Amino acid sequence: MKISIERGTLLRAVAQAQSVVERRNTIPILANVLIEAEGEQVSFRATDLDIEVIDRVPAQVLRPGATTVAAVTLHEIVRKLPEGALVQLSDDGASGRLSVEAGRSRFQLATLPREDFPVMASSEYSSNFAAPAPVLRRLFDKSRFAISTEETRYYLNGVYMHVADGETGRVLRCVATDGHRLARIDAPLPPGAEDMPGVIVPKKTVEQLRKLLDDDEAEIAVSVSETKVRFATPEITLTSKVIDGTFPDYSRVIPVNNPRRMEVDAAEFAQAVDRVATVSSERSRAVKMILDEDRLLLSVNAPDSGAAEEELAVAYADDHLEIGFNAKYLLEIAGQVDRENAVFLFNSPADPTVMREGNDMSAVYVVMPMRV
Amino acid sequence: MKISIERGTLLRAVAQAQSVVERRNTIPILANVLIEAEGEQVSFRATDLDIEVIDRVPAQVLRPGATTVAAVTLHEIVRKLPEGALVQLSDDGASGRLSVEAGRSRFQLATLPREDFPVMASSEYSSNFAAPAPVLRRLFDKSRFAISTEETRYYLNGVYMHVADGETGRVLRCVATDGHRLARIDAPLPPGAEDMPGVIVPKKTVEQLRKLLDDDEAEIAVSVSETKVRFATPEITLTSKVIDGTFPDYSRVIPVNNPRRMEVDAAEFAQAVDRVATVSSERSRAVKMILDEDRLLLSVNAPDSGAAEEELAVAYADDHLEIGFNAKYLLEIAGQVDRENAVFLFNSPADPTVMREGNDMSAVYVVMPMRV
Repeated sequence: MKISIERGTLLRAVAQAQSVVERRNTIPILANVLIEAEGEQVSFRATDLDIEVIDRVPAQVLRPGATTVAAVTLHEIVRKLPEGALVQLSDDGASGRLSVEAGRSRFQLATLPREDFPVMASSEYSSNFAAPAPVLRRLFDKSRFAISTEETRYYLNGVYMHVADGETGRVLRCVATDGHRLARIDAPLPPGAEDMPGVIVPKKTVEQLRKLLDDDEAEIAVSVSETKVRFATPEITLTSKVIDGTFPDYSRVIPVNNPRRMEVDAAEFAQAVDRVATVSSERSRAVKMILDEDRLLLSVNAPDSGAAEEELAVAYADDHLEIGFNAKYLLEIAGQVDRENAVFLFNSPADPTVMREGNDMSAVYVVMPMRV
Repeated sequence: MKISIERGTLLRAVAQAQSVVERRNTIPILANVLIEAEGEQVSFRATDLDIEVIDRVPAQVLRPGATTVAAVTLHEIVRKLPEGALVQLSDDGASGRLSVEAGRSRFQLATLPREDFPVMASSEYSSNFAAPAPVLRRLFDKSRFAISTEETRYYLNGVYMHVADGETGRVLRCVATDGHRLARIDAPLPPGAEDMPGVIVPKKTVEQLRKLLDDDEAEIAVSVSETKVRFATPEITLTSKVIDGTFPDYSRVIPVNNPRRMEVDAAEFAQAVDRVATVSSERSRAVKMILDEDRLLLSVNAPDSGAAEEELAVAYADDHLEIGFNAKYLLEIAGQVDRENAVFLFNSPADPTVMREGNDMSAVYVVMPMRV
């Protein structure tokens, strides 16, 4: 293999690859990126056995071939090369080394045979559809914060992407929850997605996917089977196993008839919660909300260090209510609001609370109260 | 005590205080800042028993008095208050709480009695002089990287500030070394400093001091005794114990007759060292310099991961030389160069190497080679 490639192009491909490889792993080749040169294209492939990313970039292929080399080291080297440099990668097949040359720099990197690189088995996908990048971005960005990191509840360690009945017909829906809070985000159902099986997309895949969704103009090809999900642009293909488990029936925990409605400026609310939470100890971080007509008092009492309260003008027309929340959860939920105002719907101090943006039902959040 | 103070002014004073207090300490009051209000001024005092910082700021003192409160919590609160807010601090003396109020936010913070706050004993200083901030900044900025962090050699855990015989007469000199590299920086001797005892300024003090030296126009009042050093601007006073030990006779380790001279573009050199070091393992990071006429080859050989080399055009007129260095040390030293070119003076591959900026003897660096 021998290729000549622009440093910036190489850097983007290798950066994606090195973000997939696990820093600590016992199988040496999983630290490597598989480089395959053929025609006028070079592909960079990295995997952790659960996720596989392939990045195809244009390059001058002087001699076709393939090899694997440490992704992190190659990334470090390319990152440190001067901007605009032309990089030559070559491998004589015999020495077991990949030569990296740019200007007056020459590197020899240890390789492992391409045959040993675990290429993910191809799958039959039962459902194929396309969705604009901004639509997928909204679905995952607004739900990912609620993903559970508790390994014992592995079926909550991802975003549940599925087809559901929304307010206005069938929708593509993403749901995540950790048992303390829940996010349910809807988008119009793309043609071809009607029969998609519901899949739990793992947290790491959601993070990797995020890099494909930055381009507002991009159309993402999505393929789904019972065991795998694939997201692809013309350059990048991200394939991932999905979590083998059953996502719980979340609809039962979303209250539909919470009678008490409070509307508040989301940014003001978040800043006030952040301030009053300062005095509480790291562990509890409980914030009490005390509601009276058009008036919200946020209050924190931490016997050791002190107390804090802050008053906010809100729209609230119901009777007196006192309800406590984890400050972190309140902050994260308020941070999801794109419009000016957040609407909170309360029942009793022991019941889950709903947060929405106005009457828009395409993004609904639930947060459990805590006793304060 | 009752004071009214602008948020930005308060934030600067509390930020300095919270950076002095140790995050983990067994004496509760050392986590606190002592706030003293009198006349039209409020002082904020923090200490770790080795360093004391006092920051005096203008404020409206409605009722004089003093109290102590957790520095980190107060800093967090003030940081989160809106810009331009007017903050009221008040303490009724009976409740054991300091009230912090701004707009619609109210905080009550636990206090500890001012009497329990350890105020550093005042000292007789044998030497008092003034130096412009940029002069002190250069002395400490160019030497601090070489401070040892090895606790067993506690007398190297700081910068040795003393009066010495420089090339052009008596100078104010800062020296730091960890046994592997050494920095010796000179400045013109300020009037009044002639009889200053040499003191080892601890690493943490050097870091705190750095914040006083940002203002190019500032004149810093320096006071030195055998046991303490004090740096002061009209607003801030930083007092520190000095390290109770004898700084070794560094002059013996600075070679004066290294015959081989190499001149190199400092930025190019640093980038090339950084690049070739990429392939070496974290621990050794040895870079070999191979010198021939007007040509430097940087080379790294890491059997596990690979090899790297890069050629640089340099000015060198001596015979062939191969010498190895720790890459980190080379990078740090090259990073001290303000001019375009760095001059390296070598003897044998086993002898210490000198680095200077041209023929300027006011900043001299020594680095020990390593066998490669």
